[in-house]
Amino acid sequence: MSEAEIHDLGPVTLQSGMTLPSLRLAYQTHGSLNADRSNAILFPTWFGGQHPSNRWIIGPEWGLDPTKYFIVVVNILGNGQSSSPSNTPAPFDGPRFPHVSVLDNVKAQRRLLAEAFGIDKLHMVIGRSMGAQVAFQWGAYYPDLVERMLPLVGSARTSIHNWIFLENVRTAITSDPAWLEGEYREPLTLAFRRMRLVFDSWGVSQAFYRQKLHLAQGFATTREYLDRHAPNLVTDGNDVLAQVSTWQGADLSDNELYAGDYAAALGAITAKSIVMPSRTDLYFPPEDSEIEVSHMPNAELRVVPSVWGHRAGAPGGAPEDIAFVDRAVRDLLAA
Amino acid sequence: MSEAEIHDLGPVTLQSGMTLPSLRLAYQTHGSLNADRSNAILFPTWFGGQHPSNRWIIGPEWGLDPTKYFIVVVNILGNGQSSSPSNTPAPFDGPRFPHVSVLDNVKAQRRLLAEAFGIDKLHMVIGRSMGAQVAFQWGAYYPDLVERMLPLVGSARTSIHNWIFLENVRTAITSDPAWLEGEYREPLTLAFRRMRLVFDSWGVSQAFYRQKLHLAQGFATTREYLDRHAPNLVTDGNDVLAQVSTWQGADLSDNELYAGDYAAALGAITAKSIVMPSRTDLYFPPEDSEIEVSHMPNAELRVVPSVWGHRAGAPGGAPEDIAFVDRAVRDLLAA
Repeated sequence: MSEAEIHDLGPVTLQSGMTLPSLRLAYQTHGSLNADRSNAILFPTWFGGQHPSNRWIIGPEWGLDPTKYFIVVVNILGNGQSSSPSNTPAPFDGPRFPHVSVLDNVKAQRRLLAEAFGIDKLHMVIGRSMGAQVAFQWGAYYPDLVERMLPLVGSARTSIHNWIFLENVRTAITSDPAWLEGEYREPLTLAFRRMRLVFDSWGVSQAFYRQKLHLAQGFATTREYLDRHAPNLVTDGNDVLAQVSTWQGADLSDNELYAGDYAAALGAITAKSIVMPSRTDLYFPPEDSEIEVSHMPNAELRVVPSVWGHRAGAPGGAPEDIAFVDRAVRDLLAA
Repeated sequence: MSEAEIHDLGPVTLQSGMTLPSLRLAYQTHGSLNADRSNAILFPTWFGGQHPSNRWIIGPEWGLDPTKYFIVVVNILGNGQSSSPSNTPAPFDGPRFPHVSVLDNVKAQRRLLAEAFGIDKLHMVIGRSMGAQVAFQWGAYYPDLVERMLPLVGSARTSIHNWIFLENVRTAITSDPAWLEGEYREPLTLAFRRMRLVFDSWGVSQAFYRQKLHLAQGFATTREYLDRHAPNLVTDGNDVLAQVSTWQGADLSDNELYAGDYAAALGAITAKSIVMPSRTDLYFPPEDSEIEVSHMPNAELRVVPSVWGHRAGAPGGAPEDIAFVDRAVRDLLAA
């Protein structure tokens, strides 16, 4: 994996009131910042992702073109690259790592951009899944700093259904006998196998399997597909739970600016936005995005017409979906 | 719970080739068989259900009116009432109980009807969920014996997606440290809690939670709802897995009549049918029902317009959904 740069923010007090003595953001940049610092695009990672995950749609052949833009890929907290249970010293290591909110991520990212690059305005923020939740939080918390926003297969606030789905992810981890309340010493083989099974049922759509797209890569049977070798980037169980916790708590209005007023927070997003759910996403269904867009003054709803469910437009997914997302990126950047 | 009658079929060789020395069907009847035995309605139970489960829509105030019809509620094999891991003696007890197919159920039910009542024709077969799978199998395997068929929120063949979902149910049971490969001696508390969580995410829809219908019964929070007391009828882990196995294997064409030809098996169903998926069912999505009906010569697709997901029309669900299902029952019976 390509190395990330590290920006150490020093002691940071989180939204929960707890203070981490040294909060570190791991990031990677593509392209060059122009003279007036007006070409910066922020691209946070998603649940289970790390900075290399975001490369699938960055390059001179894509809308996210490093010859034009300065693209900052930032690892979300808890993902094993930025500050996480697995890389934080005692007394905040492992299961003692505090809850980190989406806003904690956004505030830390703002400092990174300012302190490392002198950037105080984003040409665009784009994110997929949990990264989309980060994008929404940027748009609502720093409306004057975000010119464009593209949340892909994510939401402004984690729905109740999504929260319950995530309880299954949590259970997949904690049900492993090797888990030991997060003090595990043996590999969490069962935990990650069970988490895979949860995502194999939720992560794509019923139609994906009806069309047998899971067998397209050479698997003879569904069982063989379920048992495939597909290593995770995030391999630490506490890191997984830290991200689950962030995801479950996501709510762009849960802060002093909006005090839980969801509609007001969405209404405050002045960034020109294209909100992109997938037509068949089972945990970020397009209905939630419709509601979001109905409150946003400057947003377009553009549903990815895909049977790939939550994986619509994701790396390894259907090329036409990725092209569809890239088209939206180009349209938004041209606006 | 009201007592079921027991019909012992003696030794029965299953589709798998294994022979159970004494296969017993537990059933309950409502109403009286008329003189020419033409008013029989078969109503099998569903996954996790037992004969009292089916009473919610039986009565003089419903289409399933015992003053007109002779309604036979039959417990599916593996449900703890009919032959099941929990009530079968060695050597087929517990985890040694053999795989039972939907067709095994149907053939046993046919014998029950003939041997106990002299019934050789069904005015209607109706079933919900796995019971709908039983209904489909009746219609395809004994087309001349079924005059009407109403499968509610079920399918003719378990889809791949549904199969994978069920692997999560299986894992919920087998992940309990008390499970001991099915030789458990302690209550499977964690197993049933985890299974509940799987069904709480899959069993209703995203919109159900968006509308906060889960809180309507007086729960203050989603956590409180998830932790609610809701005892299961099927309390034996091996019984649960026996039903998972039957469900996963459901395919109305998997027999000597159709040799896996799904379209031919559906095409053979001459019964006048109303196929009733729920618009928001996450594991029996209406698209599968559309495909089924497209192959059936005498069927109507009637989607329950509900946000209750798989629980549309189920006991404890929305009264308007139950009324919608009852209307279809009446329409079909009047046809």
